[in-house]
Amino acid sequence: MVSPVKVFGHPLSTNVARVLVCLEEVGAEYELVTVDFLAGEHNVPDHVARNPFGKIPALQDGDLVLFESRAIAKYILRKYKSSEVDLLMESDIEAAAMVDVWTEVEAQQYYPALSPVVFECIIFPIMRGTATDQKVVDESLEKLKNVLEVYEAHLSKHRYLAGDSFSFADLNHFPFTFYFMATPYASVFDAYPRVKAWWQSLISRPSIKKISANMPTKF
Amino acid sequence: MVSPVKVFGHPLSTNVARVLVCLEEVGAEYELVTVDFLAGEHNVPDHVARNPFGKIPALQDGDLVLFESRAIAKYILRKYKSSEVDLLMESDIEAAAMVDVWTEVEAQQYYPALSPVVFECIIFPIMRGTATDQKVVDESLEKLKNVLEVYEAHLSKHRYLAGDSFSFADLNHFPFTFYFMATPYASVFDAYPRVKAWWQSLISRPSIKKISANMPTKF
Repeated sequence: MVSPVKVFGHPLSTNVARVLVCLEEVGAEYELVTVDFLAGEHNVPDHVARNPFGKIPALQDGDLVLFESRAIAKYILRKYKSSEVDLLMESDIEAAAMVDVWTEVEAQQYYPALSPVVFECIIFPIMRGTATDQKVVDESLEKLKNVLEVYEAHLSKHRYLAGDSFSFADLNHFPFTFYFMATPYASVFDAYPRVKAWWQSLISRPSIKKISANMPTKF
Repeated sequence: MVSPVKVFGHPLSTNVARVLVCLEEVGAEYELVTVDFLAGEHNVPDHVARNPFGKIPALQDGDLVLFESRAIAKYILRKYKSSEVDLLMESDIEAAAMVDVWTEVEAQQYYPALSPVVFECIIFPIMRGTATDQKVVDESLEKLKNVLEVYEAHLSKHRYLAGDSFSFADLNHFPFTFYFMATPYASVFDAYPRVKAWWQSLISRPSIKKISANMPTKF
């Protein structure tokens, strides 16, 4: 009997959510082993043996142990890819390149603009007990509007970010956008109807519905 | 006759250097079309048509136009891979995962610790005329030491980051480490002999020698 893959992490973590939605998309069996980072469990020797940087998530698949959520996600999407679910599209070099371009756009343009709002409005108040720094929020929202303008133009020509098919590039936007929509600034998206429709299509996916059900937005 | 691929960028840029060393590693013909970002040429309509975020580099290969340096680099390494040069190792799912893990470690752990020193000591003084913020430098160096400690332990068990073979994960460390070595803090690496030997092996590669020759460290 093959053991299911184990994900070491916590459902609240955006990086863990990135991995879990991939497992749900491909329909793989898995076990989530809770590492309670709020209680410092990511720094205990057992976990540091899995990830020397002491971060979550880590993945164990037989003897193979991986860390860094984007690397784990790609491993899962490659291992379980099928004719129905192929979110990296690596059999077509140009399609794979478009997935990579928009995966990097998320990491380099979208995340740096959107995430500070989530940190200031949700994560820091809970984790550090600090108040929201409104200057940081306002500057980030200005950057975010510029990024969303590019997305709006792009999504007026393409159904999904990498083209006509849903891909890892879209999926990567889920965890932080989900929390952003729980901040007082969700309505920023209203000015970008194509982006908003794309986001609605993402959160209607069964994988995202299931994983986001364990990501509370009220604390 | 097939036209060589065109890279739109500037030799000073670390993101352009990331792409150029990949082209050198695979031995592809290419043309570097200068986009002088110091003169604002990345914001002109011709370049924004290539990259809607107005950043360098962009790549043109026939009708295909790509942006985001990591996505471009992977496209090049896939397109020109051979039995001699296969820096993504995607035919072996576990080897590819190790390349991805350490590529992400560079992006998520190494770069955030090392790059502020380069920004404060080299990039901001030139681009913005500002003085070095020593507090930022000192905090970054502390983070960097923690990261280098993990690298030292890892490189005592493996010749290269992803295992016994040189890969994209190693190559990604070149551009910013090269500039770091031109700051007054290069000697930080002396306490990590395996990391230092690994870095020496990187900068002896013909690809890196050639591209770094156009990256001045005195201005």
